[in-house]
Amino acid sequence: MRGVVVQDHHVVVVGGGFGGLQLVNDLKGAPVRITLIDRRNHHLFQPLLYQVATTLLATSEIAWPIRSFFRDRPEVTTLLAEVVGVDSQAHVVMLKGGTTIAYDTLVLATGATHAYFGHDEWEPVAPGLKTLEDATTIRRRVLLAFEQAELESDPAIRDALLTFTIVGAGPTGVELAGIIAELARTTLPKEFRNIDTTKARIILVEAGPRVLASFDQVLSSYAHKALEKLGIEVRTGKPVTSCTAEGVTIGETFVPSRTIVWAAGVQASPAAAWLGAPSDRAGRVVVDKELRAPGKADVFVIGDTAAVMRDDGSPVPGIAPAAKQQGAYVAKVIWAKLSGQPAPGPFHYRHQGSLATIGKSAAIIDFGWIKLRGWLAWWVWGLAHIYFLIGVRWRIAVAWSWLWIYISRQHSARLITQRETMREE
Amino acid sequence: MRGVVVQDHHVVVVGGGFGGLQLVNDLKGAPVRITLIDRRNHHLFQPLLYQVATTLLATSEIAWPIRSFFRDRPEVTTLLAEVVGVDSQAHVVMLKGGTTIAYDTLVLATGATHAYFGHDEWEPVAPGLKTLEDATTIRRRVLLAFEQAELESDPAIRDALLTFTIVGAGPTGVELAGIIAELARTTLPKEFRNIDTTKARIILVEAGPRVLASFDQVLSSYAHKALEKLGIEVRTGKPVTSCTAEGVTIGETFVPSRTIVWAAGVQASPAAAWLGAPSDRAGRVVVDKELRAPGKADVFVIGDTAAVMRDDGSPVPGIAPAAKQQGAYVAKVIWAKLSGQPAPGPFHYRHQGSLATIGKSAAIIDFGWIKLRGWLAWWVWGLAHIYFLIGVRWRIAVAWSWLWIYISRQHSARLITQRETMREE
Repeated sequence: MRGVVVQDHHVVVVGGGFGGLQLVNDLKGAPVRITLIDRRNHHLFQPLLYQVATTLLATSEIAWPIRSFFRDRPEVTTLLAEVVGVDSQAHVVMLKGGTTIAYDTLVLATGATHAYFGHDEWEPVAPGLKTLEDATTIRRRVLLAFEQAELESDPAIRDALLTFTIVGAGPTGVELAGIIAELARTTLPKEFRNIDTTKARIILVEAGPRVLASFDQVLSSYAHKALEKLGIEVRTGKPVTSCTAEGVTIGETFVPSRTIVWAAGVQASPAAAWLGAPSDRAGRVVVDKELRAPGKADVFVIGDTAAVMRDDGSPVPGIAPAAKQQGAYVAKVIWAKLSGQPAPGPFHYRHQGSLATIGKSAAIIDFGWIKLRGWLAWWVWGLAHIYFLIGVRWRIAVAWSWLWIYISRQHSARLITQRETMREE
Repeated sequence: MRGVVVQDHHVVVVGGGFGGLQLVNDLKGAPVRITLIDRRNHHLFQPLLYQVATTLLATSEIAWPIRSFFRDRPEVTTLLAEVVGVDSQAHVVMLKGGTTIAYDTLVLATGATHAYFGHDEWEPVAPGLKTLEDATTIRRRVLLAFEQAELESDPAIRDALLTFTIVGAGPTGVELAGIIAELARTTLPKEFRNIDTTKARIILVEAGPRVLASFDQVLSSYAHKALEKLGIEVRTGKPVTSCTAEGVTIGETFVPSRTIVWAAGVQASPAAAWLGAPSDRAGRVVVDKELRAPGKADVFVIGDTAAVMRDDGSPVPGIAPAAKQQGAYVAKVIWAKLSGQPAPGPFHYRHQGSLATIGKSAAIIDFGWIKLRGWLAWWVWGLAHIYFLIGVRWRIAVAWSWLWIYISRQHSARLITQRETMREE
């Protein structure tokens, strides 16, 4: 044990995502009590959420109860509760319902949600993908579109039902488009009698000049071609200017499309508002070099809700490894402070690589020192994701689901659930 | 091939449960077109639904898209649609939205839902268990009760939150009580800091004189003792007279209990009303000996929505094997009619056995020629259910989930999902 200076120091962590969990893990053995608050009871493995939305995986294969991680850590209390504010003068966190929780050190790791660039009215017709419910909503709408097309006698409506638009060609958009295309081309054709699902249009819209813009030009072009090979219409360089229940307007052109999925913008959680702290355009708290909220020595902000810069001035990407590094870093700062050691110096982000898949056989990977594409990249991607899943139980379950899909071409989780059994027209 | 007399005979089957699927299976090769209509896109393996409600299995492990079963049967069209009526004079089925579908032979296999004996106002506080959404609702409420108790400072409210009442001690009620007890006693204790989950009360209420009344006295007594060994309070001989958000009244006694699950009554689907046919008290169509609606030669009613008697005058139980036998029988009648063969004679139900589990190590089985109880019965039960799951993919997945739970005592699917993130008080 390191030298213990402070007894009964209370660390409150808000958010059980990658950053929050890493922090709590790394504080194991520290002279602290920890309260971990999340408004959901589960940690979500967001990198695979698109596979739930597209019927490849079940919800419980990528989400695990947060409190189960800390069953053997009696100093960690997990609370299912919604934080509605922070009083950093009084050192308390306010919960919905009126309860307050005092902290000595506060870590906000509350993540981000999707953003519609000032067009929140698009959300009902163009759901984004951040929660399990988002994923089952998208799954339901995609599957219902095929079902309704099977029943539809008007050819124009049938075509609109069989047109799927994905807005945003970052990794999530590309991955969604790839699986929806394979669902239509490979899995479903033999099951419908009145429609030809192979004729379904999958349109991937990107306002910027190219798909997967965070990758270099060569990998991005490869991905573009791989998408077109899957029969996806890739439309770059024009933004979506309108989304309705009838369709989507790309630049000036209206495309009838009954199913729209939003994979474009990101908006940070309201942590900046809670703190009265300066934020960037996406609402992220502009933190100092030790990931502290400006002027608040006891409040750290990490993950997707913090605006952190790399050494070259470019922003740290909103991906799981970045959040984990920040959680680990703040744990080090807290350890150092409580044991009277010198602080570990400013946070440095190490980029380990970028990965994206296109359907069931292609992927691109940029580790910096090596770039991969094609089926080899796809296998590296799959193995990496299985490795990063939490617990051997889930690694085997997901590996089995994928193996089965690979062999049988049959998706595992084609369920239409929740109350909305038929989409409101 | 048998001799074909009638060409292009159109069989319309409403309901993709055990009875409907068996019928369509057994009509393979018959000179018919088949339209299978269900308002859900999935067939549900209802015997294991309670395991979804109690966090043992994932939704997609016990539900499969109906249309996927018939991908290689081009003469079978599957429609996701809701039937709202039947015109047996005009030989058409009416769908919600106005579409009509003409039939030559109609088979109604529309199942049943739970019934509150004239107290439908109890449903919001005491959900039943018939659909996947019912199961995730119960799962959410059970898990939320523990979460809210962890946050609650008032000891009376905390006790009410930690009191779970299951109404009805048939197989479903017994199975639910057993798993909730094990969840509280085995899985959760180490994860909470402010409450002792082992102190949770699980109350199983049965208006009749004993639990599992469809089994003989010896097995029923064994089950009663096995339930008490799990710490479940079994209350027989008094009905529930009121359910509110605060608790349940058993006979005259009010018991504060924030979570109530309804496993008592059954109400058939409105098939009798569609046909204007006579029905029994549970709303089931009273069919003739060939499972036809009275006076309608072309309309069959099978499964939970039909009142069928055994040779001794007792009712055929509402279980999967009974529905399957009826589906198979009607397929035979249709085959015979279309091939000009004599009808197969009246329907006879063969009871293959009754099974029920109590928690993770006890079960009772009555095959008639042999009665089993204890761990051996439990293994027979488990293997039988794995065997009856559809497809090797799911047999392996469920076997793996169970094996993991058996080894680790960790449940697989402890997710709180859907919009209601905190229970309305």
